[in-house]
Amino acid sequence: MADQAFQDYYTDDFSHCYGCGKHNSHGHQIKSYWEGEQSVALFTPKPYHTAIPGFVYGGLIASLIDCHGTGTAAAATYRAQKRPMDSEPVLRFVTASLQVDYLAPTPLDAQLEIRAEVEEITPKKVVIKAQVLAKGIVCAKGRVIAVQMPKTMLNAITGEK
Amino acid sequence: MADQAFQDYYTDDFSHCYGCGKHNSHGHQIKSYWEGEQSVALFTPKPYHTAIPGFVYGGLIASLIDCHGTGTAAAATYRAQKRPMDSEPVLRFVTASLQVDYLAPTPLDAQLEIRAEVEEITPKKVVIKAQVLAKGIVCAKGRVIAVQMPKTMLNAITGEK
Repeated sequence: MADQAFQDYYTDDFSHCYGCGKHNSHGHQIKSYWEGEQSVALFTPKPYHTAIPGFVYGGLIASLIDCHGTGTAAAATYRAQKRPMDSEPVLRFVTASLQVDYLAPTPLDAQLEIRAEVEEITPKKVVIKAQVLAKGIVCAKGRVIAVQMPKTMLNAITGEK
Repeated sequence: MADQAFQDYYTDDFSHCYGCGKHNSHGHQIKSYWEGEQSVALFTPKPYHTAIPGFVYGGLIASLIDCHGTGTAAAATYRAQKRPMDSEPVLRFVTASLQVDYLAPTPLDAQLEIRAEVEEITPKKVVIKAQVLAKGIVCAKGRVIAVQMPKTMLNAITGEK
């Protein structure tokens, strides 16, 4: 795995997300890395991330797939443009659509592994497919349609004109 | 609206969910009510439920649709069976599939209204379609395929044989 996670390259303005922002002390602060053509993030649920006793609630799984998906979309686009993630112009993606299929109850006492890969990539849109594994079992599959954040929105956040 | 929320009828064993369990002090503790053929839940995001500054992160929206959806699935099935939600046998639903389309950035400084209705109901499966509104604008649409929790799993949780 690389030393730096995708999220480590996010500028401060984009590091407040509950799912993946390093400046969100309440949040999940997930870290995503390339492993060849796949991206991977690891996350250990808290005891209170429960659905029914012993199992992870579905919203957490959706959130992990969502943030790992948009992070992978950005990383894949930088990669397609053959430039590092800390180069300009900044690319950020938002989720247009999220699909999660829950295949098996996800145990709470396990580190979760979120794996994703690019299904389709165009200049403005990236489709990511993902899996969430626990104890070697695929507990959920997901699909994220991530679209590039419009420049007007990027500028509104960073304060640029 | 009725006095009691769907979740108020959940037995203690099923009240630990991060999204909707009244015994989960860390969680969202959403409350869902019938309003005619629709069900509605209200939720005020915390300041840290952010995606980018000023807007709600997508995983929260997915979580709200998920828990309101499975709660509505249970309520609709009790209603179809013409019996109250505190009658036996207990019905609980889990999510087989969750789809969320994010239509507009969801403001963080607003009470969110999650509205759902039954699209399809069979004895074992309920399909729910949902909307999340903020300031009168539909920010997200969702669809939950909820399936009845198998009796073996119900019994494992309640300790019955």
